[in-house]
Amino acid sequence: MSLDAPREAIRVAEIFGPTIQGEGPVIGRPTVFVRTGGCDYRCSWCDSLHAVESRFRSEWAAMTPGSILERIAELSGGVPLMVTLSGGNPAIQPFGPLITAGRAAGYGFSLETQGSVAQDWFADLETLVLSPKPPSSGMQTDWDKLADCVAAAGPVTQTALKFVVFDRADFDFARQAAARHPDLPVYLQPGNHTPPPPEDDRAPVDIDGLNDRLDWLVEQVTEARWFAARVLPQLHVLLWGNKRGV
Amino acid sequence: MSLDAPREAIRVAEIFGPTIQGEGPVIGRPTVFVRTGGCDYRCSWCDSLHAVESRFRSEWAAMTPGSILERIAELSGGVPLMVTLSGGNPAIQPFGPLITAGRAAGYGFSLETQGSVAQDWFADLETLVLSPKPPSSGMQTDWDKLADCVAAAGPVTQTALKFVVFDRADFDFARQAAARHPDLPVYLQPGNHTPPPPEDDRAPVDIDGLNDRLDWLVEQVTEARWFAARVLPQLHVLLWGNKRGV
Repeated sequence: MSLDAPREAIRVAEIFGPTIQGEGPVIGRPTVFVRTGGCDYRCSWCDSLHAVESRFRSEWAAMTPGSILERIAELSGGVPLMVTLSGGNPAIQPFGPLITAGRAAGYGFSLETQGSVAQDWFADLETLVLSPKPPSSGMQTDWDKLADCVAAAGPVTQTALKFVVFDRADFDFARQAAARHPDLPVYLQPGNHTPPPPEDDRAPVDIDGLNDRLDWLVEQVTEARWFAARVLPQLHVLLWGNKRGV
Repeated sequence: MSLDAPREAIRVAEIFGPTIQGEGPVIGRPTVFVRTGGCDYRCSWCDSLHAVESRFRSEWAAMTPGSILERIAELSGGVPLMVTLSGGNPAIQPFGPLITAGRAAGYGFSLETQGSVAQDWFADLETLVLSPKPPSSGMQTDWDKLADCVAAAGPVTQTALKFVVFDRADFDFARQAAARHPDLPVYLQPGNHTPPPPEDDRAPVDIDGLNDRLDWLVEQVTEARWFAARVLPQLHVLLWGNKRGV
């Protein structure tokens, strides 16, 4: 089977980098992002609607694994690095062949998903970040599906839970979800209450408000003595606001 | 030997928390800080002079391991967490008995030091962060001593290198130092060019300038294709400025 067979086409909203990963367990690590188009969720506060809503579908390119790898290598100067698969929900894309070919060339892969769709190629990832969406999102978590994702990743992939937290109900949700998977490391992240409208990535973010929310989240964690959780901001938002491609 | 024998006294500048670790490999993790007084270095841009300069010695308490553990437990509500040993240079203090007793009670320990003094109790740490000081500090690194620290930590302690970077010479220093220890993870951190004078922890920090420096550092790393390095800010400075005790 050729890498460039059309049935393996991946819907790509954007490829950019190298930059640093701004959040979660691999925060600070240089990476190239492959953001896919299409999502089975519609979170109320989604910060990537340009990669979610069907009305932007015409802006997503159907790319073969070969052409995606070529673009990554161009951006990284051919030096292998960690590739972050993001979306949208990248778990609905046929990433298996891309990951196999990329790993053979020395690249590693990190995937960020809500955990609604499990794939056998999760076991070939370096890092799997499962981000079940809390009540403020308006979405419902299917806990069996989340467990399927953890099982699919297996013992080699570094799997972590990441929760966006806007309020106390979200915080309680995170604690309950984390209790279902006590072996997984947990990352808490204050939600961006000023997400960009999909048409305007120059829309301002409320940095002071975000810092207040991070401060509040640190307080919640320390008051609850939830010392196994890690609290991190979205560095890229603090640095570059809502701007895309950085 | 009693834990409270005077010869085991540790010079403590401050104990505070729980808060989150603001930098390095355990960024975001809830922790209590034990900051010791006294240092064999005098870095030009030191941000903790109140725990370094001898004129503040009268403000440092000579504490026994038992009384330090008691204070930590009081702060953490008796729930074990990661304790961060910082300074000054905490490696010049007799921390062995404290770490042994703390581990028996479920606490873990992370130490931050320039790597000028090796101790056999490094092997009992959870994390050892070695932060050789770059040219801008005005200090000279003894590479044999640094290697002694790595060896003392052994295979179980998670050892990492962290470099404060102010300029291109510091960046080049970090690359060369990292090349001496290719197995250790590397963290780069922009220097705070507005460190607090020791008398005034309300002195303002230049957040925009710090963000520009982080941005610049990301550029250096990506242009050099140094994809093994991680780039992280000092979260606590972004959140709380120069304020102590947070």
